[in-house]
Amino acid sequence: MPLKRNNEAPREKTERTLLSYTPELRVLDCTLRDGGLTNDFKFTDEFARELYLANIRSGVDYMEFGYRASREMFDVNKFGKWKFASDNDIREIIQADKSPETMDISIMADVGRCDYQTDISDREHSPVDLVRVATYINTIPAAVAMVEDAHAKGYETSCNIMAVSKSSKEDVTAALEQIARSSVDIIYVVDSYGSLYPEQAQALCSMYVDIADAYGKTVGIHTHNNQQLAFANTIEGIRAGVCYLDATVSSLGRGAGNCPSELLLGFLKNPKYRIDPILKFIEKHIVALRESGVKWGYDVPYILTGILNQHPRAAIECIDKGRKDYSQFYIELSENI
Amino acid sequence: MPLKRNNEAPREKTERTLLSYTPELRVLDCTLRDGGLTNDFKFTDEFARELYLANIRSGVDYMEFGYRASREMFDVNKFGKWKFASDNDIREIIQADKSPETMDISIMADVGRCDYQTDISDREHSPVDLVRVATYINTIPAAVAMVEDAHAKGYETSCNIMAVSKSSKEDVTAALEQIARSSVDIIYVVDSYGSLYPEQAQALCSMYVDIADAYGKTVGIHTHNNQQLAFANTIEGIRAGVCYLDATVSSLGRGAGNCPSELLLGFLKNPKYRIDPILKFIEKHIVALRESGVKWGYDVPYILTGILNQHPRAAIECIDKGRKDYSQFYIELSENI
Repeated sequence: MPLKRNNEAPREKTERTLLSYTPELRVLDCTLRDGGLTNDFKFTDEFARELYLANIRSGVDYMEFGYRASREMFDVNKFGKWKFASDNDIREIIQADKSPETMDISIMADVGRCDYQTDISDREHSPVDLVRVATYINTIPAAVAMVEDAHAKGYETSCNIMAVSKSSKEDVTAALEQIARSSVDIIYVVDSYGSLYPEQAQALCSMYVDIADAYGKTVGIHTHNNQQLAFANTIEGIRAGVCYLDATVSSLGRGAGNCPSELLLGFLKNPKYRIDPILKFIEKHIVALRESGVKWGYDVPYILTGILNQHPRAAIECIDKGRKDYSQFYIELSENI
Repeated sequence: MPLKRNNEAPREKTERTLLSYTPELRVLDCTLRDGGLTNDFKFTDEFARELYLANIRSGVDYMEFGYRASREMFDVNKFGKWKFASDNDIREIIQADKSPETMDISIMADVGRCDYQTDISDREHSPVDLVRVATYINTIPAAVAMVEDAHAKGYETSCNIMAVSKSSKEDVTAALEQIARSSVDIIYVVDSYGSLYPEQAQALCSMYVDIADAYGKTVGIHTHNNQQLAFANTIEGIRAGVCYLDATVSSLGRGAGNCPSELLLGFLKNPKYRIDPILKFIEKHIVALRESGVKWGYDVPYILTGILNQHPRAAIECIDKGRKDYSQFYIELSENI
């Protein structure tokens, strides 16, 4: 497996306008990973394989296959394989299609939920290119240890600090400085609760970009669609200098879902990106997934947790129960602030 | 009927921040009007009455009851009453609740589709406060004539230039200059095709605000949700100095719908605005309306007409037919550019 990074971003910054394109932008599809949170990662191999091919044909730069969760902590019989996203399972999907010119592969490793020392092998033995470390702001040192482990094994690395909308600017700055001093390549702005307005997303992205620039790092953005702002905040991030853009097909992801790939690919002007393979994937697989009863996407309860800057779990429960008493649900949420 | 405008905007401009509020902002609910395009205006009186009360309780500033379409041109048996929104029909809904302190009432009059000389009476005989004239850019003189007629009759007036995303900057500037020299009070930015990105919406709003300011006029914004940007573009408009904000409950409106009232009211910080009466209305009426088969709101075909800056009619037809062959639909659209 070649270690060269075909997606390495050029060092010079280009001007970002609506009619030209920005060569250093990277689209990362995390449909299997964030989408797996809606169905316990129980995707068919056909779904994963055709998503992989659709992403390649659409010019997507990275595909995230799932979490590399600990098999000690989580019951492998209760979850589909992408909760654990082993190298072998990934290889079975990509088959012989991987080359330095095609799409890169990522996995996500959660602080405290991944036996990374044993479960992440050296990159030369793995189909994975990028290890994304997800952390809360109170576990940054553990995240840095995971980043250093993955970096030493030869991977590109990112650090995704979740739920920053709950943290003070001082805490976020301190966390960013710690991460930026590590070997990490990419630092992610994550709007876990879908609570950020574009003006806030822009300010937060600019703050990340300023610190990242000072240390020669790159910034990414991962949004949620509680207030129908996932796409808007993602393109606001581009204006603020963000390079890595997370998206999922048809928003498939926890709760209100993420920035839809079909909107993002329709927006980006780089001729390498195409929307039609994703449209074909939607008509074949996403329509059926929704009809099978898997629930995700923008709905009233998610607006309310978004506005209140809360974890979506209460809204997910509200929707699972089929509740439509939105005003009562809002009262309950407001009492739990 | 008092002629005093309780909603008159203060002349001084206030600073616009995310934590304070902007007293000159006005929310205009056009659920019956734009939503009427989804069901031929066949709303029950109970729907209209409870929407009216929900809007008052939510602090909404204006409610638009419908079009005042020509009864000569359109068959009154084919449409519900809000296609024609007569003074008497409006009075039956508002009953005795109107006072200078409550919400103002608007109607929309389309250039070429309204017998305004005869069908719009003097304001002192009407429950209507604001007449909104909708025009394409090639019928501005006719729109100005309608504005002057309504102004002379005592109404507040707006001019809504549709489909400007198809026009050159020079043409839009010339149109705005013509309108701004009239007696009009408000000039609307209208993103008819849901094709504007926030950066473009901001530039367009700023251009409108600059011209409007020079003539002592106010600017409004009316968005469509083809690319999940209706809300984002509306709040981008606020940043650019727009004062009048159109919204519909749960996006109810033609095609992909409009800026959702529940998102906008959740965002605005003026304590007069409340989200819970709208939530109650959604749970009672919008859920049932959707279950009855009325179709509207964000969906893949609308993304595609939005990206291609086209009228949504082909997407509406695609959805009405239950088509899911999105990639084929995209090919058909692309051939019609």
